[in-house]
Amino acid sequence: MSAQDEQPLKVCSHVIFALQETRRYKVISVDNHHNSSPKALERVAQIARDNLPANASEKDKDSAEIDAQTADLTKRDEIKKVFEKYGKGGIWGVIHIAAYKAVGESTEIPLTYYENNVSATVYLLQTASEFDCTRIVYSSSATVYGTPPTIPIPETTRLEAHSPYGKTKIMCETIISDLCSAEPKRWRGLSLRYFNPGGAHPSGLIGEAPIGRPGNLFPLLGAIAVGAQPNTLKVFGNDYPTPDGTCVRDYLHVLDLARGHLLALDALAPESKVFDNATSDARYKAYNLGKGKGLSVLQIIEAMRKATGFEFKYEIVGRRRGDVPDLTADPTLAEKELGFKAKEDLDTMCRDLWNWQTKNPKGYDA
Amino acid sequence: MSAQDEQPLKVCSHVIFALQETRRYKVISVDNHHNSSPKALERVAQIARDNLPANASEKDKDSAEIDAQTADLTKRDEIKKVFEKYGKGGIWGVIHIAAYKAVGESTEIPLTYYENNVSATVYLLQTASEFDCTRIVYSSSATVYGTPPTIPIPETTRLEAHSPYGKTKIMCETIISDLCSAEPKRWRGLSLRYFNPGGAHPSGLIGEAPIGRPGNLFPLLGAIAVGAQPNTLKVFGNDYPTPDGTCVRDYLHVLDLARGHLLALDALAPESKVFDNATSDARYKAYNLGKGKGLSVLQIIEAMRKATGFEFKYEIVGRRRGDVPDLTADPTLAEKELGFKAKEDLDTMCRDLWNWQTKNPKGYDA
Ligand SMILES: NC(=O)c1ccc[n+]([C@@H]2O[C@H](COP(=O)([O-])OP(=O)(O)OC[C@H]3O[C@@H](n4cnc5c(N)ncnc54)[C@H](O)[C@@H]3O)[C@@H](O)[C@H]2O)c1
Ligand SMILES: NC(=O)c1ccc[n+]([C@@H]2O[C@H](COP(=O)([O-])OP(=O)(O)OC[C@H]3O[C@@H](n4cnc5c(N)ncnc54)[C@H](O)[C@@H]3O)[C@@H](O)[C@H]2O)c1
Repeated sequence: MSAQDEQPLKVCSHVIFALQETRRYKVISVDNHHNSSPKALERVAQIARDNLPANASEKDKDSAEIDAQTADLTKRDEIKKVFEKYGKGGIWGVIHIAAYKAVGESTEIPLTYYENNVSATVYLLQTASEFDCTRIVYSSSATVYGTPPTIPIPETTRLEAHSPYGKTKIMCETIISDLCSAEPKRWRGLSLRYFNPGGAHPSGLIGEAPIGRPGNLFPLLGAIAVGAQPNTLKVFGNDYPTPDGTCVRDYLHVLDLARGHLLALDALAPESKVFDNATSDARYKAYNLGKGKGLSVLQIIEAMRKATGFEFKYEIVGRRRGDVPDLTADPTLAEKELGFKAKEDLDTMCRDLWNWQTKNPKGYDA
Repeated sequence: MSAQDEQPLKVCSHVIFALQETRRYKVISVDNHHNSSPKALERVAQIARDNLPANASEKDKDSAEIDAQTADLTKRDEIKKVFEKYGKGGIWGVIHIAAYKAVGESTEIPLTYYENNVSATVYLLQTASEFDCTRIVYSSSATVYGTPPTIPIPETTRLEAHSPYGKTKIMCETIISDLCSAEPKRWRGLSLRYFNPGGAHPSGLIGEAPIGRPGNLFPLLGAIAVGAQPNTLKVFGNDYPTPDGTCVRDYLHVLDLARGHLLALDALAPESKVFDNATSDARYKAYNLGKGKGLSVLQIIEAMRKATGFEFKYEIVGRRRGDVPDLTADPTLAEKELGFKAKEDLDTMCRDLWNWQTKNPKGYDA
């Protein structure tokens, strides 16, 4: 099979881990738990507490605690309450990760996607602005490149998306960019276009619970290896113009991705130089977060075989509608301007995913 | 000067006139009166009553009355109340005209535009769907063509917009199109891309009140001629690649435009053939509504001189940022499939506008 959908990965909990690791941030998590377990937050906080030095200050200790708010971003009053708690200027910046992200589902219930991803973003920006919180890092996706004309894909590629989900990402980037153009002295924004995140925190404490049959390659392989799914796998097409004919994606470790958010947040600080060479007044930019290395479906299966010791059986079937042959990032801009580098390799991603899955075969609720 | 902003024209009241003229529709108007006077509706209803035949049936008489609802489309409960009044299946279709439309303002307060134009459209579609009202005609704009590569502009031109306002129009078209793709057996939608509407109802009873200095050519000329504005006029650029060097737009009479909505509504009926040759299941299309004839700024000034007898003084100044040299529609698709034709000529537009302005120098509140 190939990877059309976004990987179910709980980017959010890994980003919180990366923020807490620095002990420079106090994290307020805002989630309606549509697709997450509050237990994930308890576990991230546990990791942070465990990592505190013996001589930790009160401030250090506080940075290990998460202010976990249950709020739905489509409800203006619920967002407002979170900001009200901290008052004007009380929140330094927002990392806006919340979204629905199933490509197929978005073609079936597009209005739900436009409401949950786009209208919610407008509310969030309006409310943040009202409380003088004018820094935002936005979770975008490689899906905004549609069928890209050049590989590896630079950020200057024209944006197009094949699904309502992908279109919501383009719309939100557009809205944030327009806001930064309208208020160049107040607002700063960065969109991070994730390529394919994989793996999990090496502790095995946080990751994604495989509920039902996962639609994505990595977790599906994990679920098969762990015995939760039958050992049958469809590889959609081996006649693509790629080295072994199967689809190629750019996988990066979710912890590398998470640390990219930290670099992005730092780049919104007053002293940052990332907007110095901008062509307009607006302090807005978009960056690819990927490794810059394409890996095929067959390469992933082989790497997961090595990591799990499990012999996967697969069958080559016809191409799947909507799949793009190759989505490999050109990651040079993020490296140059943010200092971002996806360091971990495929074997580490497989090992960490396997570690999480064997330790939590039923996810957080085991 | 040239015409970057949308013409302030009260399309809505003219569309209601066109619907009532047929006596086939009972009109429910939904407006928050952000940019309209309730008096306009009283006047339209008056025209409809005056036009009733001597032997008018009770149904005829009812069609001349408007159910005027004050509701804000950004408030879900307010939209819902309107639909609740008529119940499931009680409303046949929606003509969605409401929007903010000032190009310049949209670059200053983009979030307000995204909320009022895009989020409101999502709510409207969700609520309509809930009440089994699944036919929509949407007010789009020639601004979705940005700087078009070919003139006259066919509907197949790639969409791009230079302002947040224009982007809201593209987003709404996208959302409606995705909804029609998702539910091809339920939803039908048509977007009407208006070119430059001008004129007013020949009765002089409905039109736009010139408040402040109008940003658009037609009403500005009217306001100057009526003595409400000083006789100074800036023509932005006479070195464009157009016959006389000034910007060219495609003007059509607002009543022709309004009647286009009637044709579009009829095209959503079960027996309509407009979706027969569609390339997908989705019953969604976009049509240009224009005359297919470009007119320059200088031609408009000359036509208004003839209509008003007033000698306008103008000065040629430099080009204005964001102006596109030529926006002339290719109107053949709407003619072929909807039977639409913008019949009235420039002189009629000028005469009717002048008639409205001399009769209502202060608009509805005189
Ligand atoms: N995972 C990928 O492969 C991938 C790739 C590119 C982009 N992204 C983007 O990254 C982000 C995170 O992805 P993820 O894989 O961690 O998905 P996820 O579903 O695990 O995380 C999204 C979180 O948002 C929450 N949420 C959704 N709607 C909400 C609402 N209205 N109010 C409050 N909370 C809400 C969910 O409960 C969930 O916890 C998403 O924006 C996604 O589109 C993911
Ligand atoms: N006039 C033009 O040149 C032109 C050209 C292309 C497209 N359009 C589009 O045509 C439509 C009508 O234009 P118009 O010139 O008649 O403008 P208009 O301002 O006269 O009409 C818009 C109406 O929508 C109402 N409205 C706005 N926001 C609302 C909300 N949230 N809830 C309820 N009502 C709301 C306003 O009160 C107003 O009556 C708009 O969608 C506009 O973008 C106009």
